[in-house]
Amino acid sequence: MAGVLERNQTQEDSFIYIPPKGRTQQSDKIIQCYEPATMKYLGYFPALSPAEVNERVAQAKKAQKIWVKSSFKQRRQFLRILLKYIIEHQELICEVSSRDIGKTMVDASFGEIMTTCEKITWLLAEGEKWLKPEYRSSGRSMLHKKAKVEFHPLGVIGAIVSWNYPFHNIFNPMLAAVFSGNGIVIKIMRNASNTLTPVTLELGGKDAFIICEDVDVHHVAQVAVRAALQSSGQNCAGAERFYVHKDIYSSFVNEVTKIVKSVSAGPPLSGRYDMGAICLQDHSEELQNLVIDALDKGAEIIARGNFGPLGEDTVDHFFPPTVIANVNHTMRLMQEETFGPIMPIMKFSTDEEAIQLANDSRCGLGCAVFSGNHGRAKEICSQIHCGVAAINDFAISYMCQSLPFGGVKDSGFGRFAGVEGLRACCLIKSVVKDRWWPYIKNTKADSA
Amino acid sequence: MAGVLERNQTQEDSFIYIPPKGRTQQSDKIIQCYEPATMKYLGYFPALSPAEVNERVAQAKKAQKIWVKSSFKQRRQFLRILLKYIIEHQELICEVSSRDIGKTMVDASFGEIMTTCEKITWLLAEGEKWLKPEYRSSGRSMLHKKAKVEFHPLGVIGAIVSWNYPFHNIFNPMLAAVFSGNGIVIKIMRNASNTLTPVTLELGGKDAFIICEDVDVHHVAQVAVRAALQSSGQNCAGAERFYVHKDIYSSFVNEVTKIVKSVSAGPPLSGRYDMGAICLQDHSEELQNLVIDALDKGAEIIARGNFGPLGEDTVDHFFPPTVIANVNHTMRLMQEETFGPIMPIMKFSTDEEAIQLANDSRCGLGCAVFSGNHGRAKEICSQIHCGVAAINDFAISYMCQSLPFGGVKDSGFGRFAGVEGLRACCLIKSVVKDRWWPYIKNTKADSA
Repeated sequence: MAGVLERNQTQEDSFIYIPPKGRTQQSDKIIQCYEPATMKYLGYFPALSPAEVNERVAQAKKAQKIWVKSSFKQRRQFLRILLKYIIEHQELICEVSSRDIGKTMVDASFGEIMTTCEKITWLLAEGEKWLKPEYRSSGRSMLHKKAKVEFHPLGVIGAIVSWNYPFHNIFNPMLAAVFSGNGIVIKIMRNASNTLTPVTLELGGKDAFIICEDVDVHHVAQVAVRAALQSSGQNCAGAERFYVHKDIYSSFVNEVTKIVKSVSAGPPLSGRYDMGAICLQDHSEELQNLVIDALDKGAEIIARGNFGPLGEDTVDHFFPPTVIANVNHTMRLMQEETFGPIMPIMKFSTDEEAIQLANDSRCGLGCAVFSGNHGRAKEICSQIHCGVAAINDFAISYMCQSLPFGGVKDSGFGRFAGVEGLRACCLIKSVVKDRWWPYIKNTKADSA
Repeated sequence: MAGVLERNQTQEDSFIYIPPKGRTQQSDKIIQCYEPATMKYLGYFPALSPAEVNERVAQAKKAQKIWVKSSFKQRRQFLRILLKYIIEHQELICEVSSRDIGKTMVDASFGEIMTTCEKITWLLAEGEKWLKPEYRSSGRSMLHKKAKVEFHPLGVIGAIVSWNYPFHNIFNPMLAAVFSGNGIVIKIMRNASNTLTPVTLELGGKDAFIICEDVDVHHVAQVAVRAALQSSGQNCAGAERFYVHKDIYSSFVNEVTKIVKSVSAGPPLSGRYDMGAICLQDHSEELQNLVIDALDKGAEIIARGNFGPLGEDTVDHFFPPTVIANVNHTMRLMQEETFGPIMPIMKFSTDEEAIQLANDSRCGLGCAVFSGNHGRAKEICSQIHCGVAAINDFAISYMCQSLPFGGVKDSGFGRFAGVEGLRACCLIKSVVKDRWWPYIKNTKADSA
């Protein structure tokens, strides 16, 4: 950005945007920024005009032509500088993320800082290994050839990222793009160009959380509540459908009820609350509609958390953590992505039934399966049509940054993160040459 | 297909389609089939109606539910049966391919039989290895976890294939899909469903063929002619732009002229001609228009091959091999995919100029670079923005079936063939579990 944000002198804790001198072709559209948890005014930001976006892309193209020549050693050096900066400024980054979308400092620390640092340390340790040419077998009739796959930068990559991890979602594509020698231009907006190809799409999920009867219920209930309430449920990989074996259903519901009743939601930076805000104002109403639809169809609220004292202008930005039983798949709550702190719980009798329920969804991003029996958990996991699976843990694959992330069905296609995501930033080039070289050489003087 | 093709008793060497009994909902659209090289009538085939296509997809879904349970050993067994069949019937397969699109038996043997056999032998040797779960590092803060990527079948894959390799283009996606446990439905038609995702697109190319001055010109000229004339140039990876260093330009042109003048085109199954037909009737006229446009802008025809004696009804299906000099990038011949037996040759002075010319194209499928100096060829190759590169050979990467095939820019996205193509038939699933297992187990009697 060519302008700067400066602290607003007349209103404590808010910022104002100072546009650069001589700025031209400025867009008329202004983005007003408020803290969702307190409705404090943060300032405004002019949206970029199409001409300004093109200018940024041109700048990135120019920079990429220089950056592409950098060595992996230099790229690692750049990443180490970023890593040091992030660790030293983690509190500030968490605070800004918290202000931006209303999440707690704990959620920010986990979702913004730890994930980004893991990504950097993985790139430092293995990035070069996965981007180096990979030799392949040349086949039985081509034994005299050497075959390899090279990974070249594509040029300038465009990324359109979602608001729920305001720091990590920018750093994640940036780190992969830059480490593989590309330039990158990031929007946080909705309008993508129709000409951007290739495309990787991650469109959210409706993840199932399956609990077999052979587990320590006390332990799993705690993981389950975290899976539903992390970032107030505004998590693409959040658990949104809980399927619990009938033999432990009552004890699981009892444990969860105890925990959720002790959770209170309020402005996260006060430090007094377990859960933060709902970022988008209209979304609380939508969450309420999903609950009403479920209650109309026979569901039952069995536990709700508390609110802190909230002002009239911020009450719409909070939603109490809510446990709902007697749900079924006719309810919108079990079909649509909730993106909120709601835990709908359903009973199952057999593993086949759990698998069938988990797969009965338009989405296929992730799942979590809990069992004391390794083979059983593995078998259930392998039958669920989704891109990311955790056994006896929640969304943990995202902390293993060697792994690809993404889904199937309406959850999108392609993969970001991991080896696959890193290579998706590359032009994949197959190269074949002779194993023995000299025969092609010009051995006679040329007549020309 | 539910119907059968039977030999037509009234007309030698042609076939007639016998629809199945009780066939319903048949499409009104009939596909008439002729041999392009002789215009012999082969028979007709009713196009499938949308309902019939849906029926085929339903059948494939049913079959896949059984096939997905097959072991890799069983899949290899199936592939070995196919391989045996192809080798035993190679002459028949080549003859049918030749009739179908007018290629010579040599072209068919190379493009239909060898490529397909290589694909099968690669899958037999390595398919399982690349589809087995791949363990990845779990990251420094997740040392207590095991991380892996699994490759599951997607279900039923849809493939839309092009006509230029009528046998291989059907077997290629079928083999990858079936080996990875999928079902497959193949169209040879143009209308793809808009809802088929994910998509891999291979849209043809305008491949550059670069020849440095330090090569054996006699040898390279032979490879160059093959690169232009194979399958009458109807080859997505055919060489369509020849860039030759000025120091060997004259001797290269002399060599090429000698060879091309000795080439004659005619009905391939007569066995008397080096080059076959142009498959699509209107395409000869389009090729002629490209040549005329080039001549209008200053190009010069320096050599043409010969025709065999052709009837009035088949003359439009042949185009003489043509060498053209004095070309430049303002000509359509240097911009649009030719897909015909035309060799336009341009001079270059420096490697930078050759790279710049090669990259000055909307397409980015493949390239071939010839030099007696390894480092030099490698450097040129690495600068060309394309997906497939051969050093001192033509299109040879396709014979190394471990390698991915596909392009950038207008040549498409995604990769088929090779490890990447095989895995593109899969649901890629990240799975994380604990390294140490028992702690999750229910150690107390449950109260429920």
